[in-house]
Amino acid sequence: MSPKQVNKLDANDKLSGKRELFSVPEGVIYLNGNSLGPLPSNVQHRLNSVISEEWGKDLIGSWNKHGWIDLPLRVGEKIAPILGAASGQVLCCDSVSLNLFKLLASCLQLRPDRTRVLSQKDNFPTDLYVAQGLQQLLGPSSCQLDIVAAEQLADALSEEIAVLMLSHVNFRDGAVHDIAALTQMAHERDILVIWDLAHSAGILPLSLDDWNVDFAVGCGYKFLNGGPGAPSFVYVNKKHHDQFTQPLQGWMGHKAPFEFDPSFTPAEGVGQFMTGTPPILSLAALDAALDVFADVDVKQLNEKSMALAEYFLKLVAQQPALGDLQLSSPKEPVQRGGHLSFAHPEAYAICQAWGDVGIIADFRSPDLLRVSFSPLILCFEEIERSVQALFEVMHHKTFSEAKFHQRRKVT
Amino acid sequence: MSPKQVNKLDANDKLSGKRELFSVPEGVIYLNGNSLGPLPSNVQHRLNSVISEEWGKDLIGSWNKHGWIDLPLRVGEKIAPILGAASGQVLCCDSVSLNLFKLLASCLQLRPDRTRVLSQKDNFPTDLYVAQGLQQLLGPSSCQLDIVAAEQLADALSEEIAVLMLSHVNFRDGAVHDIAALTQMAHERDILVIWDLAHSAGILPLSLDDWNVDFAVGCGYKFLNGGPGAPSFVYVNKKHHDQFTQPLQGWMGHKAPFEFDPSFTPAEGVGQFMTGTPPILSLAALDAALDVFADVDVKQLNEKSMALAEYFLKLVAQQPALGDLQLSSPKEPVQRGGHLSFAHPEAYAICQAWGDVGIIADFRSPDLLRVSFSPLILCFEEIERSVQALFEVMHHKTFSEAKFHQRRKVT
Repeated sequence: MSPKQVNKLDANDKLSGKRELFSVPEGVIYLNGNSLGPLPSNVQHRLNSVISEEWGKDLIGSWNKHGWIDLPLRVGEKIAPILGAASGQVLCCDSVSLNLFKLLASCLQLRPDRTRVLSQKDNFPTDLYVAQGLQQLLGPSSCQLDIVAAEQLADALSEEIAVLMLSHVNFRDGAVHDIAALTQMAHERDILVIWDLAHSAGILPLSLDDWNVDFAVGCGYKFLNGGPGAPSFVYVNKKHHDQFTQPLQGWMGHKAPFEFDPSFTPAEGVGQFMTGTPPILSLAALDAALDVFADVDVKQLNEKSMALAEYFLKLVAQQPALGDLQLSSPKEPVQRGGHLSFAHPEAYAICQAWGDVGIIADFRSPDLLRVSFSPLILCFEEIERSVQALFEVMHHKTFSEAKFHQRRKVT
Repeated sequence: MSPKQVNKLDANDKLSGKRELFSVPEGVIYLNGNSLGPLPSNVQHRLNSVISEEWGKDLIGSWNKHGWIDLPLRVGEKIAPILGAASGQVLCCDSVSLNLFKLLASCLQLRPDRTRVLSQKDNFPTDLYVAQGLQQLLGPSSCQLDIVAAEQLADALSEEIAVLMLSHVNFRDGAVHDIAALTQMAHERDILVIWDLAHSAGILPLSLDDWNVDFAVGCGYKFLNGGPGAPSFVYVNKKHHDQFTQPLQGWMGHKAPFEFDPSFTPAEGVGQFMTGTPPILSLAALDAALDVFADVDVKQLNEKSMALAEYFLKLVAQQPALGDLQLSSPKEPVQRGGHLSFAHPEAYAICQAWGDVGIIADFRSPDLLRVSFSPLILCFEEIERSVQALFEVMHHKTFSEAKFHQRRKVT
């Protein structure tokens, strides 16, 4: 594509103005928004204010004066439209893993005659670990995790299953599940569903209410750009409110925490999903980061992300030197989330060498190069430059030097 | 006491230099360090750097380059000496409530023939809620919470008890338990102990290793000054390492999280107490806050805190107008933590009116005025001024106006 044509793509990009709301370092093209979103520029200002004004000056009074006490619910309300959820069903607290534990145990409570949790072999491992932890705690006669391949899920939806727990977007290849269809199939057998939206919130259009989803979780630090380890969100469909009590009970989930009653009475609705005191600094950063989404339609984000990925694939296909990169993601854009994965035996070294020239992607063990298309910060011209740089790496085999770098602990 | 005598007390205070490491607003005397510690001045600088340099510039690479991945363990190592714990036994993550859940379930695993958890009626309620949640999840035949009054604890240590779970310092009256004695009594019946150190870490000398304590938790936001909702710490005595698997399993507690193995294998030692991705901004604030403790002996902190409290009591006793304030804390300084509580039917309104003139204390339902003596920021002259202000409030009954203020949600 000629420079003129690329410029035209960028000129027609209705989201191009969003880039200036982020602080991305000079010389870096960030293809890693699905591991840690970039820094929204307003976060620094917000945290300065939370630290020096709220904590520093108003001290303990800030729990009321600056609404720290309601922040988990307020952040939940900001996330709700991104999920296609009406008010009062989303809360922001703890981590995805902890919220999954709360949800899984609650599902077993809602289906007392069933003991099985169904999931997918290559679900993100922490989701499986959570179920394994619950199984170990309750014993296999009360909770048993079944894992099957993606294509066997439909057949495995038997009436022994209490809950189907899946990730919407696969963390490796980016393949998406049809939430509406699988939820309906599960419901036909009276199976509850929990969707992990870690790789979809903020990048894929979601309609949790319309799809009649029971429960969902997701993280704040990927496409929501809430910062490292930003708290997780949890969605609890209104129809299940006040039907069960989640087991990780703590004072912040009590109906009247400041009465200091020795007996636990859960808060109404999604509020009972709070456990301990929330980490306000991390939560405030996510709150500020979400402002970027106030006037954005997720459908637009998704369309641009797909266009960026398609452009990336087109440019890769034009370079014979890149022929060894095997696309492991689905070819159809609508069957993918916000990232592409390529298998290559030297994926780790390629990722390192690409990073050395400022193109930040991801490596996923054992052999995947993962490339993410964050529509709020990327332009088509950057996609062109990043493929050109990848060509240089592969053509001149600069990765063979990077190959022996010590493997990063976090990949 | 004459101004000269007060000045002498302050002149002899070896900790007086610490005040300048904190940012306390002009005109405020902060007697609330046991609800939310004041702001250490270096936190702002650290968070600026974590946000703009680490997150903003080094992005995903910061998990390694800036050691985010090890931060929970590094912060734990900083807290360890404050607890009297050797290296490798303290980790910082999640909330006190969540860490208590992990510990209680682990104790039941370590004592498979026992089902009872013993605690105290007026333990901090969240601790009881956690045990109630576990009991509800496992059923009363597998887990049962027994609560008794403080004076009945010794008699209640029967051989049916798996674990004794107590707070070192009572959140209401500040009464302390003798950790060494109770731990020994529990061990004589093969009962494990979990100590909640929320109101003692950073203010009372602790010797967890010497006292042979099994497990402990505590929060980062009181006397450790880590900021609102700062993550909790958890102590796991080396003798129990690798003897059990805690049930809130997540990828950060896996032995090799980046291998993405579908089966959970716990990290060695205290590392398995991690669950999900830690909130780095909140954790970094606590990390910075702990620098204040690097050259401080907790014994010194405790001595100054006791001296401040004794001075407060002495001044109160001199004012007949303050005679209605009934001390509900133990009279002996060594039997108290870092705060004093006074019962008064108008405690809420008094606390408000005192706050209106810049003296920030705490109210605890139904009738307690709670006053905390943070030795890092307070001087004796401030104690004098705060009692004088309290006299004004009580003598002129200015609290009768505050009385009808709407009750704060957070008290």
